Amino acid sequence: MKFTIDQKLFSKALSDVGRAVSQKSLVPILSGIKVIAEDEGITLIGTNSDIIIKRFTPRDETSRNIRIDQTGSAVVSERYFTELIRKLPEEVTIEVDDKQVVKVRSGDIFTHLNGFRADEYPQLPEINGTNSISMDAKELKEVIKQTVFATAKNETRPVLTGVHFRFSNNQLTAVATNSQRLASRINDVYVKQETSFIVPSSSLNELVKQTIDYSGIVKIHSSDGYILFETDQVSLYSRLISGHYPNTSKLIPNEQNTMLSLNKERLEKGIERACLFAGEWKNNNITLSIKDHKLCISSGSSEMGQIQELQEIMDLTGDADLKISIDGHFLKEALHTIMDEEINIKFNGSMRPIVIESTHQKSSYLHLISPVRSF
Amino acid sequence: MKFTIDQKLFSKALSDVGRAVSQKSLVPILSGIKVIAEDEGITLIGTNSDIIIKRFTPRDETSRNIRIDQTGSAVVSERYFTELIRKLPEEVTIEVDDKQVVKVRSGDIFTHLNGFRADEYPQLPEINGTNSISMDAKELKEVIKQTVFATAKNETRPVLTGVHFRFSNNQLTAVATNSQRLASRINDVYVKQETSFIVPSSSLNELVKQTIDYSGIVKIHSSDGYILFETDQVSLYSRLISGHYPNTSKLIPNEQNTMLSLNKERLEKGIERACLFAGEWKNNNITLSIKDHKLCISSGSSEMGQIQELQEIMDLTGDADLKISIDGHFLKEALHTIMDEEINIKFNGSMRPIVIESTHQKSSYLHLISPVRSF
Repeated sequence: MKFTIDQKLFSKALSDVGRAVSQKSLVPILSGIKVIAEDEGITLIGTNSDIIIKRFTPRDETSRNIRIDQTGSAVVSERYFTELIRKLPEEVTIEVDDKQVVKVRSGDIFTHLNGFRADEYPQLPEINGTNSISMDAKELKEVIKQTVFATAKNETRPVLTGVHFRFSNNQLTAVATNSQRLASRINDVYVKQETSFIVPSSSLNELVKQTIDYSGIVKIHSSDGYILFETDQVSLYSRLISGHYPNTSKLIPNEQNTMLSLNKERLEKGIERACLFAGEWKNNNITLSIKDHKLCISSGSSEMGQIQELQEIMDLTGDADLKISIDGHFLKEALHTIMDEEINIKFNGSMRPIVIESTHQKSSYLHLISPVRSF
Repeated sequence: MKFTIDQKLFSKALSDVGRAVSQKSLVPILSGIKVIAEDEGITLIGTNSDIIIKRFTPRDETSRNIRIDQTGSAVVSERYFTELIRKLPEEVTIEVDDKQVVKVRSGDIFTHLNGFRADEYPQLPEINGTNSISMDAKELKEVIKQTVFATAKNETRPVLTGVHFRFSNNQLTAVATNSQRLASRINDVYVKQETSFIVPSSSLNELVKQTIDYSGIVKIHSSDGYILFETDQVSLYSRLISGHYPNTSKLIPNEQNTMLSLNKERLEKGIERACLFAGEWKNNNITLSIKDHKLCISSGSSEMGQIQELQEIMDLTGDADLKISIDGHFLKEALHTIMDEEINIKFNGSMRPIVIESTHQKSSYLHLISPVRSF
């Protein structure tokens, strides 16, 4: 293998793929990055125990960004290779000899890196291509952002550490919950064959990062135990979480005693302020109540002090007698992912979950938060 | 005490002073910030075991940035107060009642913070004003930046954890060393009375941060055990390190076998690259040698690989037969603080320290690094 490539281009691709590589891997070769030079361009592969990332950089005839002298492949320590390429000026020439020594040259700078045997690098999982779904990348990223934060952080119930995707009736329903709060988002998607799976939250966060500037189509291929998200340059393989995801649709109340329409940004800032004092408490308790047709947000600790603020209610329907304590941190996170100017909050008394709804009509997002008992 | 102040202005001042406040203090009142309202403006005081910072925000008649309704003082938890003010919109009104409760109001937001008794806050140390030195802030900051990084990080010899300032013969000589490397900078300064002291590196780093945008005069007052750096808005008190600073002037060689003139930026980048492999070694070993009238920078580890690069020498005087191993990290740090395009490096064989000199004539900076034995 021998090729010459623009340093900036190669450095960017390496650091994107390198993010997936775990330095703590027990298998030495998995701490490496696989480089494949073909006539069409350069492919990089990196992996950790949860995901595999494959990124293709095409050769462009006009800009002459890549020159392939000899096709082939090599595996080289991700950490040193990425750092080295980042620190080199301009063009770099990469060459591997038959002793797996990777030679990197840039002007008067000569480097030798000890590599691994490329043929010992694990094969990519085979994924059956028949059951694939196409989705707009921007929409998919929005679905992930609005659900993934609500997954469980501890592993007591493994299924809750991922987001549950269900494709049926030409709809995607994505749900995440840690059993105290629940985020649910529904999108219209063309579905050939019904399917559902649970994707680890870390894989979804990485998918968002890997496709940050991408706005085309993402193809989703799922098979037993694996899923593949595919764009024209990036393929992200992830393991799936096995197990039965709880039926959460029954948890969402159909009616409410009280419904408030509020300015989203002002509410979010108010909750952030109230969380300042609530942080001393185990549950970040804040209290919402209605006073003189205004929303009163309050929190306090006997040791530090109290905060209380009043906000305009844009619209109120139902019972105006309301007082409920909830985890302010959960509410802050739920509001943070909503892009609308105005939101609705529905209440069913102080002992039942509250429902936060985006007022945006194109897709359907809702968030459920269970109250905490106040003392 | 009662006053109204612009939120952005107050938030900035609080976070500057707050940086000095240690949350781990055993004395509860020292985790607070002291607020003093006077007709002239607002003063904030914060402290940890090493330094005290006093910052004055003047009342400006034209911009009406501050309105004083009642003079007085209060002490309030730094952590909560700073965070709270940062999250409030626009103007804030601060009021303290006779039970040390600090009321903060901004529009429809009401907060009560439990305070401390202001009269129990420790007094500032008294510093005899007769022996004071005036220095240009920009020059002083340069002196600090070019020396402070070379101080010892461990406390085996406490005097080496600070920078030694010696004012005599209308010159300031600032020296820092960890006994493997030494940074020395000499500046012309008007000195009324000879004096010398050792300032902890943490205090000097904080002084640079506190005066980051300031370009006027800094007054330096020293007394037994304390030093005060004073600008028109900030006063930074620091404890001094007691003890006898070693006489380092004898360590600096007067002659050399070899002298190289090199491009500073290119050398710095080359050393950074070589450090990549040297990191595996205890001493960040890199090797400098001369090959065919070029400087050869190399490093390597048997496990990872090797790097070698050649750089143009702009001027060479003396012996061209040279090979020396030094700590690349020390050299990188020394080069980083030099602003000149060209630097000189002097060598006295492979067992004697190398000397890096800035070619800038206005002030005198030099850096000494002891070689490491290579195996």
